[in-house]
Amino acid sequence: MICDNLSIDENGHLLFAGQDASALLRQYGSPLYLMDEDRIRRNCQTYYAAMKDAFGESALPLYASKAVSFLEIYRIIKEEGLGVDVVSSGEIYTAAQAGFPLEKAYFHSNNKTDADIAFALEQGVGYFVVDNEEELFAIDRIAGAQNKTQKVLLRLTPGIDPHTYEAINTGRVDSKFGSAIETGQAEEITSLALKLPHIDLAGFHCHVGSQVFDSDTFLRSAEIMLDFSAAIRDRYGYTVRELDLGGGYGVRYTEKDPVIDIAANIHGVAKAVKAKCAALKLPLPAMRLEPGRSIVADAGLTLYTVGTIKKIPGYKNYVSVDGGMTDNPRFALYNASYTVLAAEKMNEEKNFLCSVVGRCCESGDILQEQVLLPASIRRGDVLAVLTTGAYNYSMASNYNRIPRLPIVMLKGGQNRLVVRRESFEDLVRNDL
Amino acid sequence: MICDNLSIDENGHLLFAGQDASALLRQYGSPLYLMDEDRIRRNCQTYYAAMKDAFGESALPLYASKAVSFLEIYRIIKEEGLGVDVVSSGEIYTAAQAGFPLEKAYFHSNNKTDADIAFALEQGVGYFVVDNEEELFAIDRIAGAQNKTQKVLLRLTPGIDPHTYEAINTGRVDSKFGSAIETGQAEEITSLALKLPHIDLAGFHCHVGSQVFDSDTFLRSAEIMLDFSAAIRDRYGYTVRELDLGGGYGVRYTEKDPVIDIAANIHGVAKAVKAKCAALKLPLPAMRLEPGRSIVADAGLTLYTVGTIKKIPGYKNYVSVDGGMTDNPRFALYNASYTVLAAEKMNEEKNFLCSVVGRCCESGDILQEQVLLPASIRRGDVLAVLTTGAYNYSMASNYNRIPRLPIVMLKGGQNRLVVRRESFEDLVRNDL
Repeated sequence: MICDNLSIDENGHLLFAGQDASALLRQYGSPLYLMDEDRIRRNCQTYYAAMKDAFGESALPLYASKAVSFLEIYRIIKEEGLGVDVVSSGEIYTAAQAGFPLEKAYFHSNNKTDADIAFALEQGVGYFVVDNEEELFAIDRIAGAQNKTQKVLLRLTPGIDPHTYEAINTGRVDSKFGSAIETGQAEEITSLALKLPHIDLAGFHCHVGSQVFDSDTFLRSAEIMLDFSAAIRDRYGYTVRELDLGGGYGVRYTEKDPVIDIAANIHGVAKAVKAKCAALKLPLPAMRLEPGRSIVADAGLTLYTVGTIKKIPGYKNYVSVDGGMTDNPRFALYNASYTVLAAEKMNEEKNFLCSVVGRCCESGDILQEQVLLPASIRRGDVLAVLTTGAYNYSMASNYNRIPRLPIVMLKGGQNRLVVRRESFEDLVRNDL
Repeated sequence: MICDNLSIDENGHLLFAGQDASALLRQYGSPLYLMDEDRIRRNCQTYYAAMKDAFGESALPLYASKAVSFLEIYRIIKEEGLGVDVVSSGEIYTAAQAGFPLEKAYFHSNNKTDADIAFALEQGVGYFVVDNEEELFAIDRIAGAQNKTQKVLLRLTPGIDPHTYEAINTGRVDSKFGSAIETGQAEEITSLALKLPHIDLAGFHCHVGSQVFDSDTFLRSAEIMLDFSAAIRDRYGYTVRELDLGGGYGVRYTEKDPVIDIAANIHGVAKAVKAKCAALKLPLPAMRLEPGRSIVADAGLTLYTVGTIKKIPGYKNYVSVDGGMTDNPRFALYNASYTVLAAEKMNEEKNFLCSVVGRCCESGDILQEQVLLPASIRRGDVLAVLTTGAYNYSMASNYNRIPRLPIVMLKGGQNRLVVRRESFEDLVRNDL
């Protein structure tokens, strides 16, 4: 199994967080997201402990809540002591409603509107991660109007291609995010931040891509950022207080994906960062990482009920489920890999090759190609798609007017609804 | 201009349906969908009149409401006399709430659940477009339990590749949709439909793909379907009453897309269908087409406010707007082409080459690459993306917790809100 919160019981049923997945589907309805709270907390604790151990007490992981954002997740993150990375007024609102201490929130986005900036300032968001000079001027102006000085990190692009997917490659010079070190724009925005009266420059941020398995990526970006920080110290007398290396380590979608020892990787990065700081005579900054996917992905799983099974002799086989690109658009968007299991037939031989497809009227509504399922698969069986805790609920749509799925949280053998299933009434709530 | 509901006023402002687009943005807020009711009605009338003229009174176009589905659209379609193609219980619910006469509804989907089938039967949906044998058995069983006989069309795959995008190619033999003529499965399901007691076989359906510019595609699929119908008559004594050729004609996203004369095309198909029917000694069936995109796409337009303008010397330029893949995921999904205009600078020279990107924390959040805008473009300017009436609102998400946009309907110089903007409260409505 790709994660140790998965197992098989004596009836050949898939257990998730120790609970019978298909029994939960019968209880809460189909289709359904499950999340394993114990796993979320363990992932948080792994980052938290490793960062404190490796970098000292000033270090802090920030949960990148765009991975999945709902009230209960912010309550869990708050209890685990992490900060959060938020990317919109909607995420700030949700975190605030959940009672999250917003002084530990870092507000990202390549395009914050004046309304977003005013709202975040009013809500007391601790840090803005500033993408560009226009934004910096806007924050200075609006903070001034609110008689505030706002702490900021500057988002810089170190120019690294992490060799992950094109669509989630964000550290390259030609990115839509941040100010490039190579072009001199990073120094320009730093110089500006040091001059503006309502801006308190706390440090620098970079993000070189999601789903990183290569620890070298963090090492190289840290070194580039520290070289830049030393150059800024030499030219402007400013010493960086915080350094945010973005996020996060890769997760296992299939058996082919490697297992990452996150703690060991963080210690490796810390060793290199400390050596580099010593060589540059820079005090070690308060370090930040922004794991999102690696906090929640393997704590999530989606359950579907099989509908049509279509065998087209000489061509291919389809197994249709009662969800699809509306609850998980990642195959449609990125050809993303997932592991699909027959949740009540875990001990049967898998020899039926098929495409697992959704129920939308769209050919691209595919959950996964080239899946092996038991040949006995039939209408009414339960399928589980693993590692769906990140970028599934958060990216869900009502395409084809399909209501969005509920989320059931599992903890210590108990389960509870944390997001209700959308109703038909919800679909027309804003229609006049 | 790509559609005649677009023009430019004396101030160089873009007019849509004769109204100043940017003034509507200031009135209703940003970003915003506009829809041109007069254009929707005209598109309906084009199909309606051409089909009645070409095929006779029994013919009827069906609006494929997955293109965009909200209460007011079904009211408009009802008034224009078209039927509708619905693909889920959610669309049936919405049509019913709008007072649409459901006897003119055709229920599609490759994977209808038992609950969907029961709901559609209770609501009095006129026709099920049956994808496969399992569904046919389920309808027969559930209709029997409700003491009903249900009219059905059988969805068949004629095996045509319409040379449109892969993701919207649905007439090929290896499609997830329908039963293939080539493999003998189409005949098997027909034979079954003629035997089941609660099934009334009304005819056949095929759909060879969206965004079809090639009239030959409809001609070839019609001929294959009629040959099949004649073979069924000869073997089973069953005469087809309705023939649904799916939908629909292509729309113009850019100046490069051809202009289609829909009426002339329909007349061309009718001539071929009538000749084929005569040759096969088949009475002309009641013909159906299912335009969705070509009813609403050019009746829609999205307005955004420009935020960040980023120039990366030696690399590329970005113009960020306050929306993106959350309100229009079609570039992220299909690299779809769109025309982007500076709505208040229509008479300025366009010499600033840029990517127009959204506000999501995702590199793939792009609305369009290689856009030419005026060099004076700056924060606060209004951008219009044309031809967004189809598959934009219907595919929208709350990714990054961004509220979905409102829709403002324009008619005869007036305007009114038909879908309200989502609020932050809406975002957490189902969170516990």
